[in-house]
Amino acid sequence: MGLIVQKYGGTSVKDAERVMNVARRITDAYKAGNNVVVAVSAQGDTTDDLIEKAKEINPNASKREMDMLLATGEQISIALLAMAIEKIGCPVISLTGWQAGVKTDTKYSAARIKNIDTERIHKELDSRRIVIVAGFQGINKYDDITTLGRGGSDTSAVALAAALHADVCEIYTDVDGVYTTDPRICKEAYKLDDISYDEMLELASLGANVLHNRSVEMAKKYNVKLSVRSSLNNNEGTYVKEVSQVEKMLVRGVTRDNDCARIALCGVEDTPGKAFQVFEMLAKAGICVDLIIQSIGDGKSKDISFTVTEGELDAALKILEENASMINAREIKSTKDVSKVSIVGAGMVNNTGVAAKMFEALYDAQINIKMIATSEIKISVLVARNQAEAAVNAIHSKFLSK
Amino acid sequence: MGLIVQKYGGTSVKDAERVMNVARRITDAYKAGNNVVVAVSAQGDTTDDLIEKAKEINPNASKREMDMLLATGEQISIALLAMAIEKIGCPVISLTGWQAGVKTDTKYSAARIKNIDTERIHKELDSRRIVIVAGFQGINKYDDITTLGRGGSDTSAVALAAALHADVCEIYTDVDGVYTTDPRICKEAYKLDDISYDEMLELASLGANVLHNRSVEMAKKYNVKLSVRSSLNNNEGTYVKEVSQVEKMLVRGVTRDNDCARIALCGVEDTPGKAFQVFEMLAKAGICVDLIIQSIGDGKSKDISFTVTEGELDAALKILEENASMINAREIKSTKDVSKVSIVGAGMVNNTGVAAKMFEALYDAQINIKMIATSEIKISVLVARNQAEAAVNAIHSKFLSK
Repeated sequence: MGLIVQKYGGTSVKDAERVMNVARRITDAYKAGNNVVVAVSAQGDTTDDLIEKAKEINPNASKREMDMLLATGEQISIALLAMAIEKIGCPVISLTGWQAGVKTDTKYSAARIKNIDTERIHKELDSRRIVIVAGFQGINKYDDITTLGRGGSDTSAVALAAALHADVCEIYTDVDGVYTTDPRICKEAYKLDDISYDEMLELASLGANVLHNRSVEMAKKYNVKLSVRSSLNNNEGTYVKEVSQVEKMLVRGVTRDNDCARIALCGVEDTPGKAFQVFEMLAKAGICVDLIIQSIGDGKSKDISFTVTEGELDAALKILEENASMINAREIKSTKDVSKVSIVGAGMVNNTGVAAKMFEALYDAQINIKMIATSEIKISVLVARNQAEAAVNAIHSKFLSK
Repeated sequence: MGLIVQKYGGTSVKDAERVMNVARRITDAYKAGNNVVVAVSAQGDTTDDLIEKAKEINPNASKREMDMLLATGEQISIALLAMAIEKIGCPVISLTGWQAGVKTDTKYSAARIKNIDTERIHKELDSRRIVIVAGFQGINKYDDITTLGRGGSDTSAVALAAALHADVCEIYTDVDGVYTTDPRICKEAYKLDDISYDEMLELASLGANVLHNRSVEMAKKYNVKLSVRSSLNNNEGTYVKEVSQVEKMLVRGVTRDNDCARIALCGVEDTPGKAFQVFEMLAKAGICVDLIIQSIGDGKSKDISFTVTEGELDAALKILEENASMINAREIKSTKDVSKVSIVGAGMVNNTGVAAKMFEALYDAQINIKMIATSEIKISVLVARNQAEAAVNAIHSKFLSK
């Protein structure tokens, strides 16, 4: 008999039919002799509807009251899911975040889990009950309800799996697992059987919206074995775990991220500390800078280009314009017409030639590279947005053809 | 500076506009220098919508999970109301039932408040915050969420007022206060300035749907002064408190209750214990019997008639038919075509002639009396339903004309 933690997202429980479907999946695992703990998100659009209600009354409501409001979404889900399991005839109990002992820090709307007091859950499991826990929420030291922010339910599930020493944490979603690239833009894409935490982290942060990074980081830290799979079929998913890459492919996946924009500061004075000043200014405003390129200066002037997310482009430009005299650039240019295409693979660091092979693929496809950045397990390039899909296909063919 | 507990029902907070309206009312009381604690119900149809969601999945869901589900309704209200108050710019905090320390017994869906641990509320009041508490809900000794059943939010408010020793508990509703009778069926009806707990109890149980009996009983027990008033205007409402009736009118109100049905057991054997057997049978099935009349038997047979609510008529008839051989009646008849009309007044008990005056009013209006029941502070008669409004008007004219 094992202990399984399962997580179901909002689309998996969006209506009565889906809730019953999820209930059957849970009771199957239970009837097979396992102890089962489930973390569940708010149904479909519930969270958005609640945010809409709040905005109508006060667009600047405190985060404490927003958390009080939003936490009801998951509470509705756990009650309905428990009712569905009752109907099937298995013993079950639903627990809110605070009832499940999920203790967080005090940062409302983006709280971090500090620890889980598992006493109540263990008591329920000892009575052979299925335990349904509200994801995305916890309680802080003031006994106030907090929510965990984006990807919160994944994080709840992994934290529960870690605290309970579960055998596996199954993340149910609307895709079959982790793919070599987005199947919607590359016909050759195929599902990976397993992938390492680090690779998953890079894939997630690069736009493969399967698992939120926080949950993968936590899974890595506590060595929780994740299984990413579909709630709509019984296909084997993808395991995320410590994988030995000997004898394995170097490149595991190709990603495309359209959520980027490029800013170029042309003709900046070529003096030490200039780049530091610019990026410190942006960091203070909470703007994340991704790729950075600085041309080799001639002693008089140089060009600095970097990317930010599309949503932060306007804010970044505003700051740069406000400090134009300090920056003293000849010209500030920007464009949203770019995408970031990356390859990810843990084996890459020890192998030469991977970057060259990637650039060759792009050259063969006549795609111009605007920026390049590399890390131990990934290589990213910036290309024109209308060439991004072609770039993904070209790179996928080069590295991942079956 | 006083301490005021206010209660707002579901219609008072049904949409953003109403929520803002209620927020202004609360902050006005706060700005006048009072400490304010508010108990609030779920918005408009929220509770019904949640029940509908549950039924779609499992019509026989456990009460524990129903309470988990329904408690979200009030949690949404308190968050939204707190946001509205934040917008006005007053310090405020919302608290769920468990955060407010509302401890109940373990009877899910119809829990009784055992005590309120007011530590948290006092702490918030000490920081001069307005405290918004979720009505209708509490927590039991297992740390599980319970709901209080019908009239629960009124009960929450009165319990809070009692525990906090509030100066007054203001119950906001969609009527202006307690009337001598239903203004919709009697043009002469007028609002009472004050009324005693006992009179209010009789009026509430007789169909004046202003305050739930549980809350009035609790107010009486802890001597909480209630003010029933409208959330839509600034009219003075009706105070419910210990009132000396010396020099006051004998009759305070006339009520009509259409939710009744009459069952007659004709030609029952006239032996001791027969009535006992019948009513014990019904009591065991949880069916409340209201008015009872037994004809004087002739030693051989007698007639027993009684009333039940419309909703319980079918269940009652089923039980009687199942036990037909034991009851051994010549005939069992039933009708829904009846209404109960009552007069209520604490002074009645010491005054003769009140009943006679009531019957005279009905005789003058040519209304036939089918059954009669009296208590210390009320007299009820059963009449044909299509004559009930006429009966109310005739009696009101007789006793309560201005």
